[in-house]
Amino acid sequence: MPRGELFDPLFGAAELGAVLSDRAWIAALIEVECALARAQATVGVLDRPSADAIDATGRDLATRLDPRRLGAAAVAGGNPVIPLVGELREACAAAGVPAAAVHKGATSQDILDNALLLLAQRAGAVAIEELRTGANAAADLARTHRDTPMAARTLGQQALPTTFGTLAAGWCVGLDRAAGGVTAALADLPVQFGGAAGTLAALYPHGPAVADALAAELGLALQRIPWHTDRTPIAELATALGTAAGAVAKIAADIVVLSATEIGEVSEGTPGGSSAMPHKRNPIAAITARAAARRVPGLVADALGAMDHELQRAAGAWHAEWETVTDLLRLTGGAAHRLAQSLTGLQVHPEAMSRNLAVTGGLLLAERVTAALSEHTDRAREIVTAAATAEPPALATDPTIIGYLGTDRVRELLDPAGYLGHAAEFVTRALAQRGDERKPDTPPADGPL
Amino acid sequence: MPRGELFDPLFGAAELGAVLSDRAWIAALIEVECALARAQATVGVLDRPSADAIDATGRDLATRLDPRRLGAAAVAGGNPVIPLVGELREACAAAGVPAAAVHKGATSQDILDNALLLLAQRAGAVAIEELRTGANAAADLARTHRDTPMAARTLGQQALPTTFGTLAAGWCVGLDRAAGGVTAALADLPVQFGGAAGTLAALYPHGPAVADALAAELGLALQRIPWHTDRTPIAELATALGTAAGAVAKIAADIVVLSATEIGEVSEGTPGGSSAMPHKRNPIAAITARAAARRVPGLVADALGAMDHELQRAAGAWHAEWETVTDLLRLTGGAAHRLAQSLTGLQVHPEAMSRNLAVTGGLLLAERVTAALSEHTDRAREIVTAAATAEPPALATDPTIIGYLGTDRVRELLDPAGYLGHAAEFVTRALAQRGDERKPDTPPADGPL
Amino acid sequence: MPRGELFDPLFGAAELGAVLSDRAWIAALIEVECALARAQATVGVLDRPSADAIDATGRDLATRLDPRRLGAAAVAGGNPVIPLVGELREACAAAGVPAAAVHKGATSQDILDNALLLLAQRAGAVAIEELRTGANAAADLARTHRDTPMAARTLGQQALPTTFGTLAAGWCVGLDRAAGGVTAALADLPVQFGGAAGTLAALYPHGPAVADALAAELGLALQRIPWHTDRTPIAELATALGTAAGAVAKIAADIVVLSATEIGEVSEGTPGGSSAMPHKRNPIAAITARAAARRVPGLVADALGAMDHELQRAAGAWHAEWETVTDLLRLTGGAAHRLAQSLTGLQVHPEAMSRNLAVTGGLLLAERVTAALSEHTDRAREIVTAAATAEPPALATDPTIIGYLGTDRVRELLDPAGYLGHAAEFVTRALAQRGDERKPDTPPADGPL
Amino acid sequence: MPRGELFDPLFGAAELGAVLSDRAWIAALIEVECALARAQATVGVLDRPSADAIDATGRDLATRLDPRRLGAAAVAGGNPVIPLVGELREACAAAGVPAAAVHKGATSQDILDNALLLLAQRAGAVAIEELRTGANAAADLARTHRDTPMAARTLGQQALPTTFGTLAAGWCVGLDRAAGGVTAALADLPVQFGGAAGTLAALYPHGPAVADALAAELGLALQRIPWHTDRTPIAELATALGTAAGAVAKIAADIVVLSATEIGEVSEGTPGGSSAMPHKRNPIAAITARAAARRVPGLVADALGAMDHELQRAAGAWHAEWETVTDLLRLTGGAAHRLAQSLTGLQVHPEAMSRNLAVTGGLLLAERVTAALSEHTDRAREIVTAAATAEPPALATDPTIIGYLGTDRVRELLDPAGYLGHAAEFVTRALAQRGDERKPDTPPADGPL
Repeated sequence: MPRGELFDPLFGAAELGAVLSDRAWIAALIEVECALARAQATVGVLDRPSADAIDATGRDLATRLDPRRLGAAAVAGGNPVIPLVGELREACAAAGVPAAAVHKGATSQDILDNALLLLAQRAGAVAIEELRTGANAAADLARTHRDTPMAARTLGQQALPTTFGTLAAGWCVGLDRAAGGVTAALADLPVQFGGAAGTLAALYPHGPAVADALAAELGLALQRIPWHTDRTPIAELATALGTAAGAVAKIAADIVVLSATEIGEVSEGTPGGSSAMPHKRNPIAAITARAAARRVPGLVADALGAMDHELQRAAGAWHAEWETVTDLLRLTGGAAHRLAQSLTGLQVHPEAMSRNLAVTGGLLLAERVTAALSEHTDRAREIVTAAATAEPPALATDPTIIGYLGTDRVRELLDPAGYLGHAAEFVTRALAQRGDERKPDTPPADGPL
Repeated sequence: MPRGELFDPLFGAAELGAVLSDRAWIAALIEVECALARAQATVGVLDRPSADAIDATGRDLATRLDPRRLGAAAVAGGNPVIPLVGELREACAAAGVPAAAVHKGATSQDILDNALLLLAQRAGAVAIEELRTGANAAADLARTHRDTPMAARTLGQQALPTTFGTLAAGWCVGLDRAAGGVTAALADLPVQFGGAAGTLAALYPHGPAVADALAAELGLALQRIPWHTDRTPIAELATALGTAAGAVAKIAADIVVLSATEIGEVSEGTPGGSSAMPHKRNPIAAITARAAARRVPGLVADALGAMDHELQRAAGAWHAEWETVTDLLRLTGGAAHRLAQSLTGLQVHPEAMSRNLAVTGGLLLAERVTAALSEHTDRAREIVTAAATAEPPALATDPTIIGYLGTDRVRELLDPAGYLGHAAEFVTRALAQRGDERKPDTPPADGPL
Repeated sequence: MPRGELFDPLFGAAELGAVLSDRAWIAALIEVECALARAQATVGVLDRPSADAIDATGRDLATRLDPRRLGAAAVAGGNPVIPLVGELREACAAAGVPAAAVHKGATSQDILDNALLLLAQRAGAVAIEELRTGANAAADLARTHRDTPMAARTLGQQALPTTFGTLAAGWCVGLDRAAGGVTAALADLPVQFGGAAGTLAALYPHGPAVADALAAELGLALQRIPWHTDRTPIAELATALGTAAGAVAKIAADIVVLSATEIGEVSEGTPGGSSAMPHKRNPIAAITARAAARRVPGLVADALGAMDHELQRAAGAWHAEWETVTDLLRLTGGAAHRLAQSLTGLQVHPEAMSRNLAVTGGLLLAERVTAALSEHTDRAREIVTAAATAEPPALATDPTIIGYLGTDRVRELLDPAGYLGHAAEFVTRALAQRGDERKPDTPPADGPL
Repeated sequence: MPRGELFDPLFGAAELGAVLSDRAWIAALIEVECALARAQATVGVLDRPSADAIDATGRDLATRLDPRRLGAAAVAGGNPVIPLVGELREACAAAGVPAAAVHKGATSQDILDNALLLLAQRAGAVAIEELRTGANAAADLARTHRDTPMAARTLGQQALPTTFGTLAAGWCVGLDRAAGGVTAALADLPVQFGGAAGTLAALYPHGPAVADALAAELGLALQRIPWHTDRTPIAELATALGTAAGAVAKIAADIVVLSATEIGEVSEGTPGGSSAMPHKRNPIAAITARAAARRVPGLVADALGAMDHELQRAAGAWHAEWETVTDLLRLTGGAAHRLAQSLTGLQVHPEAMSRNLAVTGGLLLAERVTAALSEHTDRAREIVTAAATAEPPALATDPTIIGYLGTDRVRELLDPAGYLGHAAEFVTRALAQRGDERKPDTPPADGPL
């Protein structure tokens, strides 16, 4: 009895669950066998009719191989390629293709590694698309709210005014950088083809040519040399996903905090309900994005811990990669999907931001008042600290401060909108740098930048 | 499209995959709802006929609820309990049970937490059984080979003689301790029942009575107070599994090393083949046990990292537990299963052990010669080191050593079987301590101890 | 140039940094060598005068061995015991003790493992003390605020009323359970003594007697058999610390959230300031507790990942334990220390709790209103949801609800203090269960329970 | 009492321990304050004489600030910058510089983040150098042993012949790629400068100019916008280090396995001894490299887990980075150092490789015999499997095989040197691709490639 359908959608991975399912694995494994046959025909180590027959037979087999049966047959040898090759050879025999023409010169790891790379390309593309969708939504929020004042909070405490656009611009930059990292890692995944022990002896002298042709068939980069036990490419992929999940987690955490009842500065477009409390409006997309993202760091540790592939094939570390990498793809992509949902529908409440800015009686402009007061006295910090920590805070009414600066100046200094520093400029700069990365179908909310 | 059937069997989790499948989750969720109704009837907050009707309806529903449909419906609220309660209420309505009688006073987390505990109890029992089977097999190996000399290897180098029985006794002790840890963690899992926010307000004044009755229905320990956001019980389970996986990994690593072509001291009963190399006899059960076990540490980190359940329900950390804990159960149990297979069929090759003991020309008795020589000279260590690091090593023929000790004494000192220390005694002691833990159906190979 | 003094205090580990310093390691290593000599004298394999001389020499050496010099000398052999034994032998020679009397029958791992266990006992005792101090402080808070209403928040949203005492009681239970776990793990640490390869051959036939005497000298449990490569005891310690760190993290997160400017329900007694913002009152003890605790999960993964000690001494996994385990002790104990500071001085603001309870206009009593309305209509949930999601929420004024229940009943239903369920009872129960665990010097705030 | 000097050298981090020590941290923190003053003078927001005085005072202060005292003073505010600024202001006051001129417009995180980046640049450069040294040594081994036959081992079993040069070439490629990854991550580290809350309000309108000037002073990349809570750059660094540690672990594992007594194909130039066994020749550099590298995955998980920096400054996640990142630098660099030592002095034993190749009686050429036989019969695999699994293996003498192929052909087919496939070619290709990366002072062993 399988799994995945119950929880994947909730964690944003309905689509990715399918891209990485048992059937998708089987299809990818067969795809690599077929591509190998075609590559060998191109190089001339296999006749074209055999390659064509393998290709056609493989396509057909992919539609009907039962995961449960193949899984049971994989136990004896420790990987599904062994029985799969048996099935493919048997099916090809009916088409008159000799057994030796199938899986020629390859070893199980060649097939499985490249199948994993195919799944990574496909699931990775979905994850990148989700990250970009989230980045675009963050960019739209940044553009719209470039000048919307809100309290910046450091260590949970209101600190200074900023704008919501600045926060959203930071989200956008983080997601773009993370998406770029995954893109680079995927682009740098070479085909892995070494034969039984990394020498391609069974294909000599055509081994490298077959490897290059196989790369072309599969849309992968060329390999320098077989990397069956140098797993830096896998680690680069796993860690790029880990970094992306972390970028998602940060934003999801922000949305959860800003949605808190007492803060209420944002809310999701379609919040979740509760089985017990009819009034609940939970930011459930952000919550599940965060949940998926939080499961990623340990999986990255597992992927890195499995790099110690001893000698020419690891006795365990290799096998440990398969589900770990697909889990990383699924959870990172799922987290990105849920976050994109959250961001796309995010409702921003400037009036709540304004209300919260007022809640400290000007305290979060203490830095500004201190600076202004410093031009008059060396005791500026001391005076402001005393006024700020009085109960209630008395920045606006402190006689010493007013004595130095005058009532009007103090009132002006305590206006949050007047102390936003480079907030708007940072938004503009961040958006401008994205340039034509922006999708043409999301027109800027406020004209050209 | 789901997953699990392709890789679970290979990693030893064919049975556990079913115990922890989507359908098993759904069945457990409904089981908790039914148990809650029965518990409430016992306490008197629900009439018995309603409870009976909920019970019967739930059992039926469990057989037909489609994971894919429930999974899709779970997205909006962020957990599957919300739509499941809807389905159950609808089905109960047909039996005349009012909606309010179903899921009465409970919140989604109550249902989901207890369902997870049920799955943990079931999968944990399987894992313990596998660990015990492995321990029994190790005990049999220890008993049989209590006196079979082999080279002890430290840091990869032959060090001193020991016996294979001593190594296997250590395996047995480790597995027993690990199984004990999982058993203790499972026994200490209390029911979790707090209602919408941990006060059981909706069931006042019957809340604690219902919680205790629910514990009885589910076979769980009593709760002190609701522990919806104190996840120490979950952490204790996760880490006991992590420790068990580590105990498995150690043994699997030993089997892999001892199976190496050049060492060849053990081999699996049914080794794995290769898609490319017909002669390969891979210790595939140990290899896949190791692979499954190696994926556990990162998952434990994720489980511990998710303990920071803020306030009365965590916005993400809770959701992150669900699949993490079931993955831990599946992989640890699977690793234990594969290891038990490896150990049960393990073939031991005393002649290879003997051959390897001879390979260093007595070097691994250097400690013993040093000790004997120390009674004659303060330069013992220096003399032995020189003889031991000569090329080839000359312990048996070194004139200085022979000068002090005589040829016969040197020959005697260099006999591995004469320098086994307490090896056999440690085996006897370890086996005796297991006592009646041993299964009655595995008669000792060599009579009572 | 060393480290530790700059950051340890901040993370609560000023004391633990000393307990686990380079010098503490050296002292513990020598202590084990001295205890071994005394144990051997007790058993009779070493003469008492030699043992006494080793003991005296060792104590002296411990005060003057330079970590930097020993560290440099440890490189060649890969552990500090080899040069330390050389130093000890040299120093003992001056006292007429033969080299062979020092480190007799032991191997480096014996000394290092037991030294690590000594450090664990000492640092672990500090950590337990900190956890208990925190638990006591939480118990005091629970007792004082058993009936102080506050909003329970699930997924960041106000859900229902609870009391601050209930929250604090949960903290107390979590810390107590975590402290119990560390205590149990420490109590279960046996001496580790196997000689060069686990057979104690060099001490035959006195090996086990020496091992038991050594355990008595060091205050450790007896070993069944040498466990040099069965690391379940180390894993149990590491994971108990990991669980404790998680229990700390949960509470620290709660304090950070409740200290947020907009919530303001608690504040630390001595909050931290800022280099830029004079008004900041950061809950810095909780923040740094959380920071220390968050570093623990990965270290636990490393400790579990290092359990695969192959054969009779691991080539790397063993060495990987040393600093990992001491980091776990330091960070967990440090986190507990900082949390205890936070809890001991925690200021609770019932008026802020009351203010926040009012902020939703009664929404968080929606569950209660629904239940009351259910006795009048099947549309209860629907009606309440409509009123609750109106803008602004209209539970108190909704004509349909009032029509069914009357104004007075609605007002009564919307009083948070009237819907606390078993909150106070849970506090009483949790405190009663602690019983005499409480320190006699912290008198209950409100008389005997 | 501090730590680091006892264990750092052993784990290869004697140099890095100093680069990342308490004093190095303090020096870097002050360096950032001084650079900020100079940058502000350049931009014109601070007068040059004040900047010069801060610079001179800071340099002096760095030599005398006591880590213990600063560490104690850091507790109250939760970071060492607050008391450090106090010290610096006090010292500057003596030089007539007003307090406000020091740390102007900056917040603690600005100073600490950039100090961490400085430490990362310095320690990272050491790590890269070590990785490159290791890669060069591997390249030399590959060149020298391009044609030295050895058994390739998959899953611990001899599989096919390869050459040692091919294995070493794979090492070289892995280390080069890993070094490239760390280099890229370091090059992409921008200055982080945002002021109290990310708006640089206190420096308006000169904030961005100061940030850019500060980047120039510190040798860091320009920031797009302040990234105080977007930690993708830190994650990219941490994960590049994690990948590098994994590349090291793989090679160290290979060396440990190949050094095993029964294999003996390589040995370290200066192996380690034992406190108990005079004959031991442990590959201790590889062992400690592996030990250091194995501690990295969990730390990477911690670094990724700490990416969720909520809002404008994380309450804990930020603080959790400091030691985690420096530990990653220290352990990865240390592992690389120890591996470089191992590789630089590695002794290769072709005669042992040759002996081991013969140990299976030709079994590892089964693939080749099968291929040759396939031209004569469809039962090739079946026949070879039967001969290969006979006891003893009978590939050379099997009458069926000889019947098809003849004695001479069979003997030829069983010569390992005749079935090396593209091994030598892969070495040549891998070395050629390095091109001018090679150090000029390591002349090729066998002339131009």
